[in-house]
Amino acid sequence: MLKYRAGSGCGSGAARSGGKGQYAGVVATESREVRLAKRPQGEPGLDCFSFASVTLPDPGQGEVLVRNLCMSVDPYMRGRMNEGKSYVPQFEIGKPLEGTAVGRVIASRDEKLPVGTLVLSMYGWRDAYVAPAAHLRVVDATAAPASAYLGILGVTGLTAWVGLFTIAKLKDGETVFISAGAGAVGSAACQFAKMHGCRVIASAGSEDKLLFLRNELKVDYAFNYRNGDAREHLSKAAPDGIHVYFDNTQGTQLEAALYALLPYGRVAMCGGIAGYNVPVPGPRNLIQAVGKRLRLEGFIVSDHFKEMPALLAEAVPALAAGKLINRETFVDGLDRAPEAFLELLRPGAGNIGKMVVRLAE
Amino acid sequence: MLKYRAGSGCGSGAARSGGKGQYAGVVATESREVRLAKRPQGEPGLDCFSFASVTLPDPGQGEVLVRNLCMSVDPYMRGRMNEGKSYVPQFEIGKPLEGTAVGRVIASRDEKLPVGTLVLSMYGWRDAYVAPAAHLRVVDATAAPASAYLGILGVTGLTAWVGLFTIAKLKDGETVFISAGAGAVGSAACQFAKMHGCRVIASAGSEDKLLFLRNELKVDYAFNYRNGDAREHLSKAAPDGIHVYFDNTQGTQLEAALYALLPYGRVAMCGGIAGYNVPVPGPRNLIQAVGKRLRLEGFIVSDHFKEMPALLAEAVPALAAGKLINRETFVDGLDRAPEAFLELLRPGAGNIGKMVVRLAE
Repeated sequence: MLKYRAGSGCGSGAARSGGKGQYAGVVATESREVRLAKRPQGEPGLDCFSFASVTLPDPGQGEVLVRNLCMSVDPYMRGRMNEGKSYVPQFEIGKPLEGTAVGRVIASRDEKLPVGTLVLSMYGWRDAYVAPAAHLRVVDATAAPASAYLGILGVTGLTAWVGLFTIAKLKDGETVFISAGAGAVGSAACQFAKMHGCRVIASAGSEDKLLFLRNELKVDYAFNYRNGDAREHLSKAAPDGIHVYFDNTQGTQLEAALYALLPYGRVAMCGGIAGYNVPVPGPRNLIQAVGKRLRLEGFIVSDHFKEMPALLAEAVPALAAGKLINRETFVDGLDRAPEAFLELLRPGAGNIGKMVVRLAE
Repeated sequence: MLKYRAGSGCGSGAARSGGKGQYAGVVATESREVRLAKRPQGEPGLDCFSFASVTLPDPGQGEVLVRNLCMSVDPYMRGRMNEGKSYVPQFEIGKPLEGTAVGRVIASRDEKLPVGTLVLSMYGWRDAYVAPAAHLRVVDATAAPASAYLGILGVTGLTAWVGLFTIAKLKDGETVFISAGAGAVGSAACQFAKMHGCRVIASAGSEDKLLFLRNELKVDYAFNYRNGDAREHLSKAAPDGIHVYFDNTQGTQLEAALYALLPYGRVAMCGGIAGYNVPVPGPRNLIQAVGKRLRLEGFIVSDHFKEMPALLAEAVPALAAGKLINRETFVDGLDRAPEAFLELLRPGAGNIGKMVVRLAE
């Protein structure tokens, strides 16, 4: 089993951004990257990944050279390893994987991104890269540690936000059940729902995670989905029923939620970690959706990037004030990125909150 | 197996409404009624029903005595036979069943409903009844046969209308798949979708029904869900995918539809005939809903009665002009109402279009 470190974020503090000019000359740089070696059948193994070193070109006009500080691994990447058409492009065999990363500009031929600038990109799974400045977004590491922009202030947080408020239309005072509540998206969703005055029920797969849910995120009821029946837990936690289910798992927890949902209940279908490697049976009680007029709706966060300013307006000050927690689990070094990713897919995965791979500093 | 009659409607023609005053005196009347004898475990049998004769009271002020001409049997009634709370009230053991019926006023103590008036009510499963005039709706049998108000001009038609346009937001030119397309709701949905310029794919369980779908309803592609794989049929019928699925069955056809749906596709969850008696496994591919941002939404027609005028404005003239067909399958006599109902639940049921039990005239 993977060993983790709970740590102090990565790329935190503005002090390190003082290197402006340090690498102003154009430099050739080696970068190691992680490539898709083969497509998995069922559960992926380390043999699905390979490593390669490449020599980066000099940045051209309007481009920058960036050294990554930290990168994200996310469950949705499992789907991108499969063959066949999908609505997120598949990873290609022999090509580097992709994902969000925060890095520092170390050589620049674009005046808007001077050396030292911290930038968010989709160029994860590699130590460094050259890219057009227009593909990158500047992040403010004085407001929060850089890695928070992979987590609650980034795509992870936006996924929780969109699922709760845009898709499920969660309203103040309602009761919401969030599966995989101690994971990256789940822990953001638990907190946003609490901030909006909702009653929160969350599930997780280990005692450590339950403690985190109860003691740090202050959810109203937390249960281990591997101890006892989810349907019984929901009956106990919300005898009058739930209004919204934020679904990260599908499988038996979706089935339990369908029973617990009140008329006109909503399900934000965010993911299906229970079945990413091996398909799980569908809920046997989908007929509940007819009599109770339920709405089940899937979403992909990239359709909703325009909502990022609304999230940041609320979350940046809340994080600074200690009203939000961006809990992270760190793994160090690009070499261990495949392990960190595979761990996410394991039932009862060891990470609490966002899994971040630190690459430098 | 049940024997049917294809017939000429019931209560058709305005001539019969000339009996005004004929039964103006207050009369005591016997009525036979069908009661719930016991709750079914799995597939219901005839032993779940009992018959009783009751003496009706004289109508009080504001009440009328009505003799039913025809009554509806519908798959949703299976759910009302179960125990436990639901969002449509359950039938009660020892009490008469309920459902829509069209009847004629034969004694009246309400001036708005003179003797001879045809009225639609929820007092099906009985030959006659006394009820407050305010609970009844007058129907115009000069515009269409009375039984059409149980079918395409009634709750059946409204179910199709609401599912397609209000829930699934079907737009002109889109492709829609309708399971149980030759049934009461399905055959209305096929026709409304065609009238709105959509491409229609429909499934059914017998060759007679396929002929009806192809030759009378003019759907674009019809297939027998028991011959071959629904997923292959959908690939062939709509190689570019479908926009909407009108789901009357759940089960394997829902699973096939989830594969065929285009991004942002919609599923109107109307019923689950595949699993009314014995639960069927849920779709194993519900994860499709996430990547394709699908919306699956259940509905109950009684939430949408306010849309009836919009339906009638379009459907009454279309029916009169022969642009809509209200296909019916008739069973004669209250004694055979339980059989007619049970037949609806049988895979490959013999009825085409609306199953109507004729009670008089």
